[in-house]
Amino acid sequence: MDLTYISSETYKGKDVGAALPNMRGFLSMEFEGYDPDKAIERCDVIFLARHNGWAMHEASRYLDAGLKVIDLSADFRLRDAAVYHRWYKLEHSAPQFIDEAVYGLPELYRDEIRDARLIANPGCYVTSALLALAPVMKAYVIDPETIIIDSMSGFSGVGRSKFALENHFPEVNESARAYGVASHRHTPEIEQELSALAGAGVTISFTPHVIPITRGILSTVYGGIIGAGFTTDEFIQVYREFYNDSPFVQIMDEGEYPTIKSAVGSNFCRIAVKVDDRTNRIVVISAIDNLIKGMAGQAVQNMNLMYGLDERTGIVLPGMYP
Amino acid sequence: MDLTYISSETYKGKDVGAALPNMRGFLSMEFEGYDPDKAIERCDVIFLARHNGWAMHEASRYLDAGLKVIDLSADFRLRDAAVYHRWYKLEHSAPQFIDEAVYGLPELYRDEIRDARLIANPGCYVTSALLALAPVMKAYVIDPETIIIDSMSGFSGVGRSKFALENHFPEVNESARAYGVASHRHTPEIEQELSALAGAGVTISFTPHVIPITRGILSTVYGGIIGAGFTTDEFIQVYREFYNDSPFVQIMDEGEYPTIKSAVGSNFCRIAVKVDDRTNRIVVISAIDNLIKGMAGQAVQNMNLMYGLDERTGIVLPGMYP
Amino acid sequence: MDLTYISSETYKGKDVGAALPNMRGFLSMEFEGYDPDKAIERCDVIFLARHNGWAMHEASRYLDAGLKVIDLSADFRLRDAAVYHRWYKLEHSAPQFIDEAVYGLPELYRDEIRDARLIANPGCYVTSALLALAPVMKAYVIDPETIIIDSMSGFSGVGRSKFALENHFPEVNESARAYGVASHRHTPEIEQELSALAGAGVTISFTPHVIPITRGILSTVYGGIIGAGFTTDEFIQVYREFYNDSPFVQIMDEGEYPTIKSAVGSNFCRIAVKVDDRTNRIVVISAIDNLIKGMAGQAVQNMNLMYGLDERTGIVLPGMYP
Amino acid sequence: MDLTYISSETYKGKDVGAALPNMRGFLSMEFEGYDPDKAIERCDVIFLARHNGWAMHEASRYLDAGLKVIDLSADFRLRDAAVYHRWYKLEHSAPQFIDEAVYGLPELYRDEIRDARLIANPGCYVTSALLALAPVMKAYVIDPETIIIDSMSGFSGVGRSKFALENHFPEVNESARAYGVASHRHTPEIEQELSALAGAGVTISFTPHVIPITRGILSTVYGGIIGAGFTTDEFIQVYREFYNDSPFVQIMDEGEYPTIKSAVGSNFCRIAVKVDDRTNRIVVISAIDNLIKGMAGQAVQNMNLMYGLDERTGIVLPGMYP
Repeated sequence: MDLTYISSETYKGKDVGAALPNMRGFLSMEFEGYDPDKAIERCDVIFLARHNGWAMHEASRYLDAGLKVIDLSADFRLRDAAVYHRWYKLEHSAPQFIDEAVYGLPELYRDEIRDARLIANPGCYVTSALLALAPVMKAYVIDPETIIIDSMSGFSGVGRSKFALENHFPEVNESARAYGVASHRHTPEIEQELSALAGAGVTISFTPHVIPITRGILSTVYGGIIGAGFTTDEFIQVYREFYNDSPFVQIMDEGEYPTIKSAVGSNFCRIAVKVDDRTNRIVVISAIDNLIKGMAGQAVQNMNLMYGLDERTGIVLPGMYP
Repeated sequence: MDLTYISSETYKGKDVGAALPNMRGFLSMEFEGYDPDKAIERCDVIFLARHNGWAMHEASRYLDAGLKVIDLSADFRLRDAAVYHRWYKLEHSAPQFIDEAVYGLPELYRDEIRDARLIANPGCYVTSALLALAPVMKAYVIDPETIIIDSMSGFSGVGRSKFALENHFPEVNESARAYGVASHRHTPEIEQELSALAGAGVTISFTPHVIPITRGILSTVYGGIIGAGFTTDEFIQVYREFYNDSPFVQIMDEGEYPTIKSAVGSNFCRIAVKVDDRTNRIVVISAIDNLIKGMAGQAVQNMNLMYGLDERTGIVLPGMYP
Repeated sequence: MDLTYISSETYKGKDVGAALPNMRGFLSMEFEGYDPDKAIERCDVIFLARHNGWAMHEASRYLDAGLKVIDLSADFRLRDAAVYHRWYKLEHSAPQFIDEAVYGLPELYRDEIRDARLIANPGCYVTSALLALAPVMKAYVIDPETIIIDSMSGFSGVGRSKFALENHFPEVNESARAYGVASHRHTPEIEQELSALAGAGVTISFTPHVIPITRGILSTVYGGIIGAGFTTDEFIQVYREFYNDSPFVQIMDEGEYPTIKSAVGSNFCRIAVKVDDRTNRIVVISAIDNLIKGMAGQAVQNMNLMYGLDERTGIVLPGMYP
Repeated sequence: MDLTYISSETYKGKDVGAALPNMRGFLSMEFEGYDPDKAIERCDVIFLARHNGWAMHEASRYLDAGLKVIDLSADFRLRDAAVYHRWYKLEHSAPQFIDEAVYGLPELYRDEIRDARLIANPGCYVTSALLALAPVMKAYVIDPETIIIDSMSGFSGVGRSKFALENHFPEVNESARAYGVASHRHTPEIEQELSALAGAGVTISFTPHVIPITRGILSTVYGGIIGAGFTTDEFIQVYREFYNDSPFVQIMDEGEYPTIKSAVGSNFCRIAVKVDDRTNRIVVISAIDNLIKGMAGQAVQNMNLMYGLDERTGIVLPGMYP
């Protein structure tokens, strides 16, 4: 793969090292202003990564020109334009592509991604939640009315330009808080995909928190088990079978719980499963790097699949430890 | 109040400033070895703050000598010695005091504390969870089978001498993890007190996490509402009435959520309430300083009550900000 | 002391708890818009704490009305208006008050502060540097051409509204950097005061750094010793004598070095002294809370002196530990 | 390169993922107990990375067996066994290898490393200090009696098993401190190499600090300039020429200063140079990852050179940002 076009309004005319100082000595390339013609001329596949409401206006020109498109915004994630409108307060301008777009979670849609020309790359919280729940939802052993997802994320999730007192270092360091309680926009996306897995409508409670770290998401997920007497070990087997062909998902041994640090810098998702037999709930804990498996790494994984490559190409990296 | 006796095996013979460098210039006093006779001779009230299983052997000598005792361990928190044995793997040596001991959460047992001579000071997670749930449990509007408590704590909670790789700075910084999943010892204490409030057996799921901060606990609590159509505002009123006479509990306005930082350094507990009307659950978020309202500050609050003082005496401090 | 007037353009009309959430339950009082007449009517002493270049226009009206003024900006710190102009790029509008203003470092100007009506409260880095160097400068044992001051500060030092990528949590967490190298505005203030102590012109190198903490400054200061054979112990005695009447300065025993944490939350400055006999330099390390001894706590200490009170009144607090 | 033997007493019999959870899914290999015969049988080059005083007993057997040896301890860094004894309190058991060992800083000893069979891999602080000073020492423009090195390091530098209160998360988070003042063991190593560059005896003051981050070292270095009138730009040219063939050293443009974050995760060293013309000193600031350019990455860089490979082989990685 060759990187032939990178665009940024903020860093237009500057080297990539001006935006990402770690790139100096590794990659030297100039950001250009946004110019679809140049992009079409030079690219076979394009990654769109701007604010919600932008890609729906831009995707068609690239698709028409024969490019594959991987969109990292929310524009093509929700299959129902009315739901999109309700949560994002935006009229969808390209509903004709909603059906065509493939939801870019390879662990669920690997075959569809291979044939897709438009990918809706999932949200970061959504990836951590869906990977934690997919095996049991598909196995119809969780009561769809009982699911609670409690997540914590690092501050890279707020974006690179969300400067506000509530994200200011002295305010957030040595602190933590919930936000978007009962109203976070990733909720309908999680419900859509869980419902598809369960074959029934799923409604969840989802509470994101920010904690004073830079990268990573840890989601702790609860669901009421249908039936009785299941053991943790049985569930671990269900998960291991479900993810047998998914190289980036690792199911931990009983009694081990993933740390965020073990996932940061990599495309891996590490998952622990535990039956709380006192309450007959399953507790599932998943850890990802929100910027890799939760965003850019997953986008590359999707691109690999779209080109018939091994999905691990270029993204099997161990992260940094400690 | 005069501080007449402080004991530490680790710092015996050293000034308090050797253990707590911030005390230099504020308080100079020497730690002594443990000597009950000295303690009895000099003290009217004694705070016991050692490992679980110790106070049950020591409390009687102080009570017999006429001292008031405030125990910060788990020894007198559980009203059923069998439950204590199941979770702590210790045979209770002083079951005769279990009935007498008053559970030291002033917001629930203010009157009993005033008359008590033995206080079982609550656990830190428990304080954050009980204050978040007490009003609605007492109002019988939460299904007792639906409660989930998801908490995050700073590392001061692991204690001052728990040196292990899993708590080592490079391992825990920029990370987070769950622990004690479906098995944390604070679970039966939470259930005991919630059951007393609800007048019915309550079984909960409780998952503690550690995040890379020094102090503070944030608990996010979920419960299924019995009945339909309640608003957040109605619940906020329920909470405000319940805590009307509790100066250390503050119920936030709708839409505001407490940060850990806003509670650190103080004895305050800040609580936000939200109805998730899509799922008919209540979501309650509470923030405390685990070492103050979750431990030592609450112990002083109890002492104030035991001596007929205003419970705020000496502990209305604003903490530090930012 | 009664707090009778607090003003903020940002929080005008809001309670102090809106700006400082830790204040809720401790202090309830409304910020007003800036109104000198109200201030004059209600106050005996006023603290000015706005951007550089503001107080020089406002001080006279308060002084004329008989108020005492404690200014926390740089406006009255430099005794030479030309030096002020060179470093701050501002023409001084009230040079007549420069001579009258007393430099508000009680450890150096205690008597003058007692009689002052206008105090120039020192900069945070300056306080840490001057307290580290004053005893040896006054003793004429340090070569004035050899002084290097290397400091690290938490991010509260950048101010509450300096939102920029370079201060954004993901950028600064797990990082550190120097800034203002050979050009920081606190340099002339340090040189002015060291020169006054030494009775000779002192020129220093000063490098501030930001590290990912909220509060505190640690300064490591180097100076070439005039003469040979001095021991660490001898210097420690010099420091202890110099600060004998200064309750907020503590000189540590040989071999002990202060942590930032031990000073945070308090008005104390902790100082360690070491002779590097291989190079015949003195190395002095000082720790303060930049917002207390480095700013607001020192302002209160000055006010106490101006009113003939014990300088410790209201500000002997131990901070929080850990 | 194939990894054929990894040894650990702590993790013997366990997979590498047990020690380094980020390796799961990337590398699966079992730690073995220490067995020199196995190592000799399977390896062409061996990395020794144990405590000081160990490699001097072990190196000869590997050298005799024809292996190349890269030692990451201090055992072969100091060319004078008496100096080693003075600072490490150990009698050197293999002085015959001290002369043969090549100091493994490729930027200074590239040619010698190519021909070496025993490499003494430099200390982490030393790497940051030497790279910051080498060009000007070699150019004889710094007074060798004026050098001061002030460094800050993350806690990974204390090692993975140094569990003690002084390194405990609640003690060190939101804090910073100096240690080893005027006595740190890296001092003689820095002096040895600076003296070799300057062709004259150099004595330095070196103060390391720990700050609450996991990885990285930032060194701020001061030196008095011999002669007058030099500009920052002239010095930048000297540095750029000196490191012209060193792909891992980057000299920043005037006015830019490196952050630790920009170096973490990579083998790069980023250096800023500034003339303080008020004091006629040069101020040089260098940033490295203490575990990569300061340790393991540099070891691989040395291995590449020993095998005639491009020194960048396998270690041109951009780190993670943010």
